[in-house]
Amino acid sequence: MIIVMQAGASREDLDRVVARVEELKLKPHTIVGTERTVVAVVGDERDIVGSGLETLPGVATVMPILAPYKVASREVRPEPTIVRAGPLVVGGGHVGVIAGPCSVESREQIVATAQAVKAAGATGLRGGAFKPRTSPYSFQGLKEKGLELLAEARAETGLAVVTEVVASEDVALVAKYADVLQIGARNMQNYRLLEAVGKTDVAVLLKRGPAATVEELLLAAEYILDGGNMQVMLCERGIRTFESHTRFTLPLATVPWLQARTHLPVVVDPSHGTGHANLVTSMAAASVAAGADGLIVEVHPDPKRAASDGGQTLDIPAFEKMMAVCRRVADAVDRKLG
Amino acid sequence: MIIVMQAGASREDLDRVVARVEELKLKPHTIVGTERTVVAVVGDERDIVGSGLETLPGVATVMPILAPYKVASREVRPEPTIVRAGPLVVGGGHVGVIAGPCSVESREQIVATAQAVKAAGATGLRGGAFKPRTSPYSFQGLKEKGLELLAEARAETGLAVVTEVVASEDVALVAKYADVLQIGARNMQNYRLLEAVGKTDVAVLLKRGPAATVEELLLAAEYILDGGNMQVMLCERGIRTFESHTRFTLPLATVPWLQARTHLPVVVDPSHGTGHANLVTSMAAASVAAGADGLIVEVHPDPKRAASDGGQTLDIPAFEKMMAVCRRVADAVDRKLG
Amino acid sequence: MIIVMQAGASREDLDRVVARVEELKLKPHTIVGTERTVVAVVGDERDIVGSGLETLPGVATVMPILAPYKVASREVRPEPTIVRAGPLVVGGGHVGVIAGPCSVESREQIVATAQAVKAAGATGLRGGAFKPRTSPYSFQGLKEKGLELLAEARAETGLAVVTEVVASEDVALVAKYADVLQIGARNMQNYRLLEAVGKTDVAVLLKRGPAATVEELLLAAEYILDGGNMQVMLCERGIRTFESHTRFTLPLATVPWLQARTHLPVVVDPSHGTGHANLVTSMAAASVAAGADGLIVEVHPDPKRAASDGGQTLDIPAFEKMMAVCRRVADAVDRKLG
Amino acid sequence: MIIVMQAGASREDLDRVVARVEELKLKPHTIVGTERTVVAVVGDERDIVGSGLETLPGVATVMPILAPYKVASREVRPEPTIVRAGPLVVGGGHVGVIAGPCSVESREQIVATAQAVKAAGATGLRGGAFKPRTSPYSFQGLKEKGLELLAEARAETGLAVVTEVVASEDVALVAKYADVLQIGARNMQNYRLLEAVGKTDVAVLLKRGPAATVEELLLAAEYILDGGNMQVMLCERGIRTFESHTRFTLPLATVPWLQARTHLPVVVDPSHGTGHANLVTSMAAASVAAGADGLIVEVHPDPKRAASDGGQTLDIPAFEKMMAVCRRVADAVDRKLG
Repeated sequence: MIIVMQAGASREDLDRVVARVEELKLKPHTIVGTERTVVAVVGDERDIVGSGLETLPGVATVMPILAPYKVASREVRPEPTIVRAGPLVVGGGHVGVIAGPCSVESREQIVATAQAVKAAGATGLRGGAFKPRTSPYSFQGLKEKGLELLAEARAETGLAVVTEVVASEDVALVAKYADVLQIGARNMQNYRLLEAVGKTDVAVLLKRGPAATVEELLLAAEYILDGGNMQVMLCERGIRTFESHTRFTLPLATVPWLQARTHLPVVVDPSHGTGHANLVTSMAAASVAAGADGLIVEVHPDPKRAASDGGQTLDIPAFEKMMAVCRRVADAVDRKLG
Repeated sequence: MIIVMQAGASREDLDRVVARVEELKLKPHTIVGTERTVVAVVGDERDIVGSGLETLPGVATVMPILAPYKVASREVRPEPTIVRAGPLVVGGGHVGVIAGPCSVESREQIVATAQAVKAAGATGLRGGAFKPRTSPYSFQGLKEKGLELLAEARAETGLAVVTEVVASEDVALVAKYADVLQIGARNMQNYRLLEAVGKTDVAVLLKRGPAATVEELLLAAEYILDGGNMQVMLCERGIRTFESHTRFTLPLATVPWLQARTHLPVVVDPSHGTGHANLVTSMAAASVAAGADGLIVEVHPDPKRAASDGGQTLDIPAFEKMMAVCRRVADAVDRKLG
Repeated sequence: MIIVMQAGASREDLDRVVARVEELKLKPHTIVGTERTVVAVVGDERDIVGSGLETLPGVATVMPILAPYKVASREVRPEPTIVRAGPLVVGGGHVGVIAGPCSVESREQIVATAQAVKAAGATGLRGGAFKPRTSPYSFQGLKEKGLELLAEARAETGLAVVTEVVASEDVALVAKYADVLQIGARNMQNYRLLEAVGKTDVAVLLKRGPAATVEELLLAAEYILDGGNMQVMLCERGIRTFESHTRFTLPLATVPWLQARTHLPVVVDPSHGTGHANLVTSMAAASVAAGADGLIVEVHPDPKRAASDGGQTLDIPAFEKMMAVCRRVADAVDRKLG
Repeated sequence: MIIVMQAGASREDLDRVVARVEELKLKPHTIVGTERTVVAVVGDERDIVGSGLETLPGVATVMPILAPYKVASREVRPEPTIVRAGPLVVGGGHVGVIAGPCSVESREQIVATAQAVKAAGATGLRGGAFKPRTSPYSFQGLKEKGLELLAEARAETGLAVVTEVVASEDVALVAKYADVLQIGARNMQNYRLLEAVGKTDVAVLLKRGPAATVEELLLAAEYILDGGNMQVMLCERGIRTFESHTRFTLPLATVPWLQARTHLPVVVDPSHGTGHANLVTSMAAASVAAGADGLIVEVHPDPKRAASDGGQTLDIPAFEKMMAVCRRVADAVDRKLG
């Protein structure tokens, strides 16, 4: 931690800062500059987050040096984590593809979709049973019935089931059916829920919140890892920016940035990341080229009749085309799709 | 709802759209323009959110007309809602002031703060017992012990207790102690939690998520109102933008914008909204001038030793000064502080 | 400047950094921490901006310490600058009010507006003659004819004329007519233009670009100050964020933040900052309460017939009401409006 | 244009709106809905931008239907524009690569870079002679001397010279040396400059401003096209968002979105778009996969000694590696690199 003093800070101000640092059991190191004085602090600053040092008189700013996440860090575990759930393999050169409808609607819909996406090369099946919806008046999902239908689709196809859990009290129920527990963007900082999935042995797909920094995403992952569950995938699904021609802005530089700092694999969701079906294939291909370890894509046999998110959902032929493009791009960057 | 066709849309495209609208039991109204054709749809479009109309061939965009929130709307209830909890009155010309530490730390700390903020004119006492923290390694709050201490501070001072509830399973417990249940920014779209507080008869302070639009805030409030609890305050506490000199960007135009559309009172949090103690008084005064119905402010007897958020916390003399300024500004806009 | 080494940086990496710092004629100071090593650099780091230190092997990040602006800084000039142009006084306890139409349209329009805003208490008259417009198909202003009309309105009322200059080659012409040269938000980083106005002795109103940080605003002001013109007002007019219910997001915490760091006065534009006439009065009052040194407001006798920006423009009675509210708020914070 | 009336709008309000629309020589079309009345307006609404309709009593919002750009639109010209400047071909299946240093520093530096990037497959040479810099104290470029050195590098290698022009008064000078005039992000809305390059017959690379919407980018291009110069490339180089781990956020979905709406080719700048050399190759590959028509990349023989932007600049071996990856990705999406 570096404590920068104001230009006009007095000797007393400096002494007070030094004393406070020592009181926190850290070692201060004062450097008098030409215009400013700084105090470099040696020791694990993560223990003193929020110690109010920045409120002391004469202090201009406090700059942390250590990254605040630990277990997710490559410094702790240099080799990449590979997440496996049935046929789904994410990381270590495998670009796992999870596809399926936004919401599970009927047995026919989910089984037909599962068969089609499997035929095109997907190894995971997505489908929402518990749907967090912005409006209380929107369709909220089939709940446990939806989970049962997902299990039937798995029985028919062998695909790994990826489905969202929205509350800690549902974790046991959803974990009975799911191969991967999805934490949605709205729940990225629902710490009670993160702790609950951290205590299971089911793989987790953790979506980035639309206003979350990458550091906050890694800290949310820490809540899960800290519970003992190391099978965690991070998912970039777009952030809120001033852009309105896409539903969210999909910042793909997140992929290599995260991969340089964490051993956890990074999945991209080009469906939510753009909000428009006609942008999904380009962004899926771009994600693979950027080095993504997986894709999660909304696919429905008849998007215009989908119960939710129809506008960003691929139909089967479009998904097949997307897979063909992504397979070639994966080859070009020495990775294996599916 | 207005469906705008592409410039090159064919007659068949148009017919398909019209047919789909009729299938949804709505009335289409086709208008052929000089460059574009549009289909105006008459009927309650809120029922067909996500019907995939935008995926039909030849459709350029679909623009909703009706605001998606109902019960929160001024069109449903023209007169302002006044939220009352003990001495705390928010709305209807009263600018209620809620003050206290980020976290409850000890009996001495919370009682001393309560007495001081009451003396300065606050009618609500804030203090976190369950703390949602970005890092799992940060202080997580005293939990039920913290609630007991808040109740003791209320017994000593009569102030209304405002405290956060972070999970639906805690609602009954927190409601036993609290006069106002706070839903934090991270939980604004934790729908299970919103539904749970909607079933209580305790007032709710709903904080805007840092990436939530104002429409999403109103829809989150709908979840609570829909459960029957009408004592809801909305709270602007800053949004995530590219600005980094403040912790969040505090967009005060939200206050009059919301007040024109909803009967619910609007509270501002200048502490989280700026992240710096030396900006709090200016922004508290600005909030009152902008017409805010309440303020929620972090105050601690010794901010530099606060367990959390020390950098944005006022000490007692600074809070007294803030109240003096805000009282004068409230008078200037014909409102009553406290 | 603090250079933070990576956790796994080698001794050679560290030596290379130290050697490079010395080569730049600065003094390195190595501090070995428990997890990281940092090199604190003593000397004026502003001279080595972009020296590529962050590209050296083993370097994790480089953090500047000194603020990059100089002449605008309070450390250079502690007392506030007061800008004066005829009857317009901005700063030092005076809240100057500049009002008028977006565009000068006709003699009748500009003179009538000038008389009305003067009667209500304004001391500056705004009005665009050279209009930078997003679309080449929009009205581009009356150009020199507009400047002449502004001069006529000044002759009638005595108000100071504030008008935009959009290109360095126009500076001499506009300076012939204007009391204050306005640099619009789109031109905040048009350095050639900033240098040109810096060489005049006419006061300047420098608007913040919608994506500019406050540091970039101060650096843009440096270009003007560096040319010798010290009569510079900074203007907050809103930033681009994900919010779409207002035209821009108006971050009023900028006002006290800037005032703590620069001696230059800070003006707020609630018209562009909100984009909606019915939000202007609230935000003008909030600006004054936040400590703004001035306001610039769009006023037109008949906004619905304005050649530009009609939706955010006050009519005369609304402006009179705004002034009445702002005057009371100014009194409440011990400042003088107009 | 769709004018949405407020829920409580009166008959008189509606009549007033209808009358005003007719006065603007457009055809109103009133549709009475279950909760709202809307007036659909037929005719070219681009002519009445800013007509103040939204200020009429009883009007809730005004929603435009027509895209405001014309000449840039695919509706005007369906086939893609291919920009050619010497060996540089951008568009129509060719992914042109422009590479070189941020600033021209010396003959040796620019010629060596030109030779190296040509050998690796680039067909354009970038290099700044006039540098717009955030701080007046930073290196401002070699000016005309820099242009001469670029011409020498062209003489040696045959590469097309791409260099920035920052002011309309410099256009003639820069056009004497450049094969492509670059308009930098800060000048995207410097309309005088856009008009000036629109009158030349030199190709233009127009960079998106960091807070500009894609519509504003297209409208800026209109200024150039409107002058008669049709050889315009659009360049995505990242936007300002809350993300701070990259210099800007690079939103690649812009590429297919623009390509669906405009015939102009779209180039991506992964150097400014990320700000970190170690993210450039991934994002260059992602850009090509997303369908970019060109790349512009900062390359320097010795980035740590670069006069500007060292941290985001590739050295020669890194650029060669980037080209190898991009060539394979281009093949995978049936395009030709260079």
